[in-house]
Amino acid sequence: MTEKRPLLQQLIEALRCLPGVGSKSAQRMAFQVLQHNRDGARELAEVLLESVEKIGQCCQCRNLTEDDVCSICINPRRDNSSLCVVESPADVIALEEATGYQGHYFVLHGRLSPLDGVGPDDLGLEKLNAAFVAGQLQELILATNSTVEGEATAFYIQSLAQKHNIRVSRIAHGVPLGGELEYIDQGTLAHAFGSRLLVDE
Amino acid sequence: MTEKRPLLQQLIEALRCLPGVGSKSAQRMAFQVLQHNRDGARELAEVLLESVEKIGQCCQCRNLTEDDVCSICINPRRDNSSLCVVESPADVIALEEATGYQGHYFVLHGRLSPLDGVGPDDLGLEKLNAAFVAGQLQELILATNSTVEGEATAFYIQSLAQKHNIRVSRIAHGVPLGGELEYIDQGTLAHAFGSRLLVDE
Repeated sequence: MTEKRPLLQQLIEALRCLPGVGSKSAQRMAFQVLQHNRDGARELAEVLLESVEKIGQCCQCRNLTEDDVCSICINPRRDNSSLCVVESPADVIALEEATGYQGHYFVLHGRLSPLDGVGPDDLGLEKLNAAFVAGQLQELILATNSTVEGEATAFYIQSLAQKHNIRVSRIAHGVPLGGELEYIDQGTLAHAFGSRLLVDE
Repeated sequence: MTEKRPLLQQLIEALRCLPGVGSKSAQRMAFQVLQHNRDGARELAEVLLESVEKIGQCCQCRNLTEDDVCSICINPRRDNSSLCVVESPADVIALEEATGYQGHYFVLHGRLSPLDGVGPDDLGLEKLNAAFVAGQLQELILATNSTVEGEATAFYIQSLAQKHNIRVSRIAHGVPLGGELEYIDQGTLAHAFGSRLLVDE
């Protein structure tokens, strides 16, 4: 048996599994919850244990959920004919909060990246293709990130979808609202300039 | 029974009990541990539960520990004749890491603050006074923070100790090592100037 480390030390080290938490923050968190918020800490521990046990992927859209089918997929009011492809569950939350989109989602949990050994199988593309084959889909919205790999992934999925005569769109890239031209990076500006849209008279 | 919120939502909210964690960080933490570090999250939950149950105050120095007497108080090699008074357990760690101090500590868990209703009883000063009465103590080091309340607390404890003819010292305040005079706040600089020490020839 190894020598027992103090529990406080173990707690500080365990807190470092959270992203963005270094040794000083972990120490501060440990003292804060032990001195002022034991109830909150107990609840966090219980919810964390339950989440780790129960949360898995939705069998339809691969979003994170504790049910077999997530709340979006199971909602009969959502539009079956529209599907939005995103890289991560955080993107689903961001789109739900920012847009009034009423269709469905598909979460890739990554992006195509041959160098890292991430291929179509890892992103659940056979499941996505099955949705294309099913024939209900009329529009596919590609909302992968605008990185090299995100673009490559979007292009790959686009070619899959077009075999089934599904209309494919890509979210717009350009100057952010409220952005000032002089502070925008060159790549974005060049893209925004090249993709300018005709203004209706 | 209230409507059941999604577990993921509960997890994100529970993570906000940690200091410095807002809704975006909590979301990032939740996704990160669920997608990439379930083992770490499980361990964190278990250690957190155990810590909340078991960690209390050392019966001698009031530092946080899962034992009755903390590892510093129980260590026979530490010097019984010296006691350092600090405001919080984090201060003990900071002093242990930075100095070679071999005496004991006493943790106030706060500072005298009549406006907030914090009096001598809340800081365990009767326990501290018992240590003065016991008679082993030769030096008392006051390491409370150099705030108005920290100074007032130090002064109060100093007067308690001096009744028992214990030598009392206060950690030095002044310009931090490596600090440049032009960037030091006026209060610190005035104090450092006023408390200048004679240089031996």
